Amino acid sequence: VGKVRFQLSMSLDGYVAGPNQSEEHPLGEGGEQLHEWAIANVGWRRAHRLEGGEENASTPVLERVADNVGAVIMGRNMFGPVRGGWGDGSWEGWWGDDPPFHVPVFVLTHHARGAIQKDGGTSFHFATDGLDSALRQARAAAGERDVSIAGGASTVQQCLRAGHVDEFDVHVVPVFLGAGERLFDGLGGDLRIEVTETIGAPGVTHLRYSVVR
Amino acid sequence: VGKVRFQLSMSLDGYVAGPNQSEEHPLGEGGEQLHEWAIANVGWRRAHRLEGGEENASTPVLERVADNVGAVIMGRNMFGPVRGGWGDGSWEGWWGDDPPFHVPVFVLTHHARGAIQKDGGTSFHFATDGLDSALRQARAAAGERDVSIAGGASTVQQCLRAGHVDEFDVHVVPVFLGAGERLFDGLGGDLRIEVTETIGAPGVTHLRYSVVR
Repeated sequence: VGKVRFQLSMSLDGYVAGPNQSEEHPLGEGGEQLHEWAIANVGWRRAHRLEGGEENASTPVLERVADNVGAVIMGRNMFGPVRGGWGDGSWEGWWGDDPPFHVPVFVLTHHARGAIQKDGGTSFHFATDGLDSALRQARAAAGERDVSIAGGASTVQQCLRAGHVDEFDVHVVPVFLGAGERLFDGLGGDLRIEVTETIGAPGVTHLRYSVVR
Repeated sequence: VGKVRFQLSMSLDGYVAGPNQSEEHPLGEGGEQLHEWAIANVGWRRAHRLEGGEENASTPVLERVADNVGAVIMGRNMFGPVRGGWGDGSWEGWWGDDPPFHVPVFVLTHHARGAIQKDGGTSFHFATDGLDSALRQARAAAGERDVSIAGGASTVQQCLRAGHVDEFDVHVVPVFLGAGERLFDGLGGDLRIEVTETIGAPGVTHLRYSVVR
């Protein structure tokens, strides 16, 4: 059976998004700096069907975190800037016709909505029965493969607190955001982890952790 | 002329001390977990004149951060749990007769006090004219060597904000404290840094950064 894991880019001061997230600034103000290392890399570009890009120590990391993922879970704030109900249902995510997931994506929300089928194997399913139920659905969809928690921070924290996470990658970017959404907040000392890998790359440090049971 | 630098152990959620610091818990509750990797290491033990210890990838890091230090600056909360005036002056630091600094230490305080001479080359000087003045005194004492900011977090942040820091080491420990004193808090995006080294070691990851001018 697959693992449950996540991978996120984090500023040195612990933020995964800057302040004032909006449709114009989906990553918050300054948040785009967290992803420059990835966007410049051939590993990320291939997954997003883009040409070119650098090949460096980050490339195998980017390939590995995408590898063996059979389903994705995300919070609704990551799916889009719409709050409350879904309105006319015209919002179908940030990612256009061919989102980079290529597997079923389960969006945590209080507001029911029919599934959306996209190109390239991505489908969005709206999970209204809470995290445990969403995770069961994602596990069933993933089969032998892993479930990846895409974010945001509060969804990751919920999964960590509930003991659902097996391993995770943090990409530490040498920048201070000063405000925004902190990745690791309100996590108790009873959550035991160990570091399993450390990789230095241009403009980013990749840290891999396992949760100790 | 020497550099200004600091090195601190930080939990993965960004804390350099746990909550409720006191004479009984100088590192806050749970904070001692941040230092286990160092205390077990021959590099730390040698500097503290203790026998034994492991030799591993952390050893050269511990030697390097102590190397070439000619003076130390610290906040008064790091010097001791006494608040307000110095009372009968019986508090002379946490470190006994032979503190592990072996150079002049400048303690930032609003309360004047005569210098204290300890064994092994350590002396404590109480700097009451603010950070810039303390730093000038420390630089003069260090000569060609470096000034090390020992902590705590608020002193480090003050130095970073004022543009005094040249480089720093963060030892990321795979533990969540959940509360306490965060190392990087309230630092603006105008402070530019780059990562210069990444070293994985047992139970800790060493990250070295330079401030970009």
